[in-house]
Amino acid sequence: MTHPLRLAVAGIGNNISALVQGIHHYRMIIQQQGAASDLPGLRNPVLEGFSVADVEIVAAFDVDPNKIGVDVTDAVFVPPNNYPRIAVENPKTGVMVVEGLRKEGDVVTGHERVIDAMKRAKAEVLLYSLPTGLQWALDGYVECALAAGAGLVNCTPESAARKPETLHAFAAKGLALVGDDLASQFGASVVHRALLGILMDRGLDLISSYQINIGGNEDFRNLRENGASKLRSKINALNLPNGASDRVEVIPSGGYLAQLYDNKISMMNIEGRGWGGTSLSIDLRLKVQDSSNAAGVIIDLIRFAAAAVRDHRGGFVEGARSLLKSPPPMEVAVGERR
Amino acid sequence: MTHPLRLAVAGIGNNISALVQGIHHYRMIIQQQGAASDLPGLRNPVLEGFSVADVEIVAAFDVDPNKIGVDVTDAVFVPPNNYPRIAVENPKTGVMVVEGLRKEGDVVTGHERVIDAMKRAKAEVLLYSLPTGLQWALDGYVECALAAGAGLVNCTPESAARKPETLHAFAAKGLALVGDDLASQFGASVVHRALLGILMDRGLDLISSYQINIGGNEDFRNLRENGASKLRSKINALNLPNGASDRVEVIPSGGYLAQLYDNKISMMNIEGRGWGGTSLSIDLRLKVQDSSNAAGVIIDLIRFAAAAVRDHRGGFVEGARSLLKSPPPMEVAVGERR
Amino acid sequence: MTHPLRLAVAGIGNNISALVQGIHHYRMIIQQQGAASDLPGLRNPVLEGFSVADVEIVAAFDVDPNKIGVDVTDAVFVPPNNYPRIAVENPKTGVMVVEGLRKEGDVVTGHERVIDAMKRAKAEVLLYSLPTGLQWALDGYVECALAAGAGLVNCTPESAARKPETLHAFAAKGLALVGDDLASQFGASVVHRALLGILMDRGLDLISSYQINIGGNEDFRNLRENGASKLRSKINALNLPNGASDRVEVIPSGGYLAQLYDNKISMMNIEGRGWGGTSLSIDLRLKVQDSSNAAGVIIDLIRFAAAAVRDHRGGFVEGARSLLKSPPPMEVAVGERR
Amino acid sequence: MTHPLRLAVAGIGNNISALVQGIHHYRMIIQQQGAASDLPGLRNPVLEGFSVADVEIVAAFDVDPNKIGVDVTDAVFVPPNNYPRIAVENPKTGVMVVEGLRKEGDVVTGHERVIDAMKRAKAEVLLYSLPTGLQWALDGYVECALAAGAGLVNCTPESAARKPETLHAFAAKGLALVGDDLASQFGASVVHRALLGILMDRGLDLISSYQINIGGNEDFRNLRENGASKLRSKINALNLPNGASDRVEVIPSGGYLAQLYDNKISMMNIEGRGWGGTSLSIDLRLKVQDSSNAAGVIIDLIRFAAAAVRDHRGGFVEGARSLLKSPPPMEVAVGERR
Repeated sequence: MTHPLRLAVAGIGNNISALVQGIHHYRMIIQQQGAASDLPGLRNPVLEGFSVADVEIVAAFDVDPNKIGVDVTDAVFVPPNNYPRIAVENPKTGVMVVEGLRKEGDVVTGHERVIDAMKRAKAEVLLYSLPTGLQWALDGYVECALAAGAGLVNCTPESAARKPETLHAFAAKGLALVGDDLASQFGASVVHRALLGILMDRGLDLISSYQINIGGNEDFRNLRENGASKLRSKINALNLPNGASDRVEVIPSGGYLAQLYDNKISMMNIEGRGWGGTSLSIDLRLKVQDSSNAAGVIIDLIRFAAAAVRDHRGGFVEGARSLLKSPPPMEVAVGERR
Repeated sequence: MTHPLRLAVAGIGNNISALVQGIHHYRMIIQQQGAASDLPGLRNPVLEGFSVADVEIVAAFDVDPNKIGVDVTDAVFVPPNNYPRIAVENPKTGVMVVEGLRKEGDVVTGHERVIDAMKRAKAEVLLYSLPTGLQWALDGYVECALAAGAGLVNCTPESAARKPETLHAFAAKGLALVGDDLASQFGASVVHRALLGILMDRGLDLISSYQINIGGNEDFRNLRENGASKLRSKINALNLPNGASDRVEVIPSGGYLAQLYDNKISMMNIEGRGWGGTSLSIDLRLKVQDSSNAAGVIIDLIRFAAAAVRDHRGGFVEGARSLLKSPPPMEVAVGERR
Repeated sequence: MTHPLRLAVAGIGNNISALVQGIHHYRMIIQQQGAASDLPGLRNPVLEGFSVADVEIVAAFDVDPNKIGVDVTDAVFVPPNNYPRIAVENPKTGVMVVEGLRKEGDVVTGHERVIDAMKRAKAEVLLYSLPTGLQWALDGYVECALAAGAGLVNCTPESAARKPETLHAFAAKGLALVGDDLASQFGASVVHRALLGILMDRGLDLISSYQINIGGNEDFRNLRENGASKLRSKINALNLPNGASDRVEVIPSGGYLAQLYDNKISMMNIEGRGWGGTSLSIDLRLKVQDSSNAAGVIIDLIRFAAAAVRDHRGGFVEGARSLLKSPPPMEVAVGERR
Repeated sequence: MTHPLRLAVAGIGNNISALVQGIHHYRMIIQQQGAASDLPGLRNPVLEGFSVADVEIVAAFDVDPNKIGVDVTDAVFVPPNNYPRIAVENPKTGVMVVEGLRKEGDVVTGHERVIDAMKRAKAEVLLYSLPTGLQWALDGYVECALAAGAGLVNCTPESAARKPETLHAFAAKGLALVGDDLASQFGASVVHRALLGILMDRGLDLISSYQINIGGNEDFRNLRENGASKLRSKINALNLPNGASDRVEVIPSGGYLAQLYDNKISMMNIEGRGWGGTSLSIDLRLKVQDSSNAAGVIIDLIRFAAAAVRDHRGGFVEGARSLLKSPPPMEVAVGERR
């Protein structure tokens, strides 16, 4: 790859900390082993022609005064960020965090500044990674990406790719739009779904099952208050047959525990009945680094988006569909080549 | 089904206790709901035209003096059998346990008695379910089945279907031979394999994994001493890619605990590494009724065998392949219609 | 004991279901074994001269229209009560639930009816067991008990025994007042406290610890919304040394899961450091029948109270102190013999 | 402490690795914080006047050719030792491992060499830490310690302090003898005993309980074969009341898992019954660094022994009693001041 992937990022939280540090981590490994193949923890060492090491952050936006004006490499460690420091030292990016979009009353400001920074940086893709629940912010960054001629990747459950008019706007400009809401690389849903699936495939009777998640990052602090929508999407993610979903309960955030930092713990139970009505049970505890689980998917989403942008394939990128929780329906997602 | 499936059983242990009680359990349910469909805990309420309720035990063999001469319904509760009593009352079968094959020195005796009992009972299939490790006994019952004109189902890891000469002898007589070694309906291997599979499919790095099993039935008492061959077959059952099998350890019997009776507990751990080298872990505890897990598969194996016997399809029954741990290789398993 | 203990109960929830059914359960055992000694699950088969079988419910109050006018034995199974049915059949008590105190606007009504019912029933002790959070109701039943000449046991965290004026009113009349807030017979706090205590006694370093509780009864549904005060009392219950309490987090209700019914599950983790800074960890899962844990303590509290009432020892009963989470301070608790 | 504690060690396994590295670890911390107080992971930063940092290894014995002649700091990392490296670098001790006692046929050789090395090193205490099961070796090192004028600490279940004649020989020479078999600093027994104790204290009924241990060091490899004596001592360690011990099963080594290295995992289950016969259960998983658990106790045993030696208090040291699994009975243990 002659030209690195030029990435702008909005929202300098744990996901960006994981992304920045992880890219550096893999660069060191590639340098040591002299090849980009076989990088532990990655689904695709090379995707759409881009190695992990080809990703370069060229612009960054946030509204935290402790992050603005600071090199991205330092900004990712500003609290409440609490993703671990995975290397003794991370090199500076030379890219300072720029003040992002703000909402005062009903007015959103800062578009000029953001668009200008993206243009100057020649950003190809904008990664939207703010806390969940800020539809106005996503709408604002959508405008900025369109104005700056960049594709967009939306990590959050807010709607961008699911809005037909937004999808068309990107398609019309030959810009990729990848979203909405990323699926974890290895999360509670896939494990829970697999176990329930085996149970039912083999003719056993599901009596009850629960999944409860706890964690120590800002997502968990927010979810605790506002978990209802997340709950529905988590139960949907289990793909249960008719009838079975009544017997499964999911608690997306059972609690915020500061001591867990960016770790997420899922506790699951399955009670079933087999031959002769005799019982069986499974208890499982899954512990993951929450933002690593996101970054391991983000790295693929941005490469899908950048390849489409370079290729002038506007709109949704089908290759990314399985990596998303809420992609647009098939019929409206068709991108057009400009 | 006009004619019930006439089954002879050798070895009146927990598996037969589960089978006999389970068949009664499902008969009660069918009677209550007026149909054989939707029986909880069963893969196939009806298979090859046989409902679960169509299975009738017509002959039974064991060498325990406390079981010989006793109705099968009572014999299944004689210690060391410790499968639970799943109904308040089970009806008598009217079939008394007959003394089975014995080995004195190098001489195996009792063939006449067994063959005679099977012929008088018009048994269609002989289910071999003795403790593991008695190849001489399996060889003896193979002879008896052939002589009595019955098919054979071998639940144990001993070799019958994997012996080409035995397979040919059954094929030549138009008798079905189903074996060897049944796969559990819902066991540790399938769960462990699924979790390791997801981990590796998604690009995460497997650091280490273990599975340790404990239980309170005679299998666990025997395994503790003699676990090496079982270990290899359990690791094979995980279907691991090259390289990964070094990082997985399985202990088929970590201990015999009388307090667990016929329950089996599997404890598994998986340690992995994801994006940026950050770690993840899974700890799982699976508790099952060990012999229910067997009976839920036996019920299908005997129906496959009986249908083939009635149809004069001799040799291995392909439909049963996925329910067995050590079926004969594809090329030698071809049955012939007599 | 010639005279049975005459108990009135306010709030016919799971605790009363456990109490009523448990008393019947132990009566059956006593009858079978011919003695009240060695009753499994009980701290004190006989206490203050009362056997468990001596407790008789003589009056009962609730505001649920589906419970009013119904025999207590039936009322305890009215939803949302979900304590299990522990015997095939429970004998009727002959005592119908009477409409309890109500609040309309700022006015509490029903005192006459309650006092009258207690007097007619010659109740010696009133057990207050309404949902948490209804201080007005506790205040009302306090008045009723005083007027009817009965002692009071307060199971809830609301204040009765901690109010000096209330304590004096009972003391002045020679009536016992036992409260506030019962400690579970075998709960998460005692287990968590024991493990943390061992760790620190032996010189190991506590890094972090959490406890998260889930359940399916009404307490859990309420707690989820209103957990802050409970949280503080749960952390206090751990008796941690200075400094250590910062490292321990407790979530009294991580979630309401209907499938758990009246079961409560506590999940605990302890991370520590030993010799040379090497790490150790404990993960624990405790599953209990929540209301059995209460009834096993209530049975002692009411016997302490009734013995004091018969003996004209007014005020707090010191013997009950260790069974309560928030007893009155020692100096104000001194009862007086009238 | 002007004079460091001069320690000889026999058996350069994981325990000595933990001891040597741990002492260096604490020296670094003491140096940083300028005081020996408040060392995390230690019961007693200073004991009998000795700080942890005062312990110096002055002689070392082993029979592994890969360890003989090597500096102790390097010898502790020779396989099968697998205690982790807890610091980037450990300073050399300058003490080379000397060939220890050997048994050829029925003859034990090497006493001269060992005695000579101890005398030249002016060792005050000999720490015996060979694999379990080698009574002949312990007997030999007992002779050596007596001849060299050193006290002895026996970490293993073999008998030294429980042999009256050995105890008298040490007492007569004014030399301390501390043993036998050290109790872990924080192990499965103390946790299991605490939980069972709470259960029974509170009147709950114990139905059944098990404890199963797995690990990856040489102890676990040996135990798997030879666990019977260990089993008895582990059940004794639970201090169960009459009757309860039938319901508790302990498996000292459920398996050797190389992937665990020097970690030990204990899995425990407790099933009980409370009020009304309703059930409760505890499942617990304890993970510890096995040899840290030993070193944290060894550090106290050797300080007790050395202080007694300097003070000419011969025989058993009472202060160490609670740190041992099999100390001599009280009546025979009385040391005498020479």
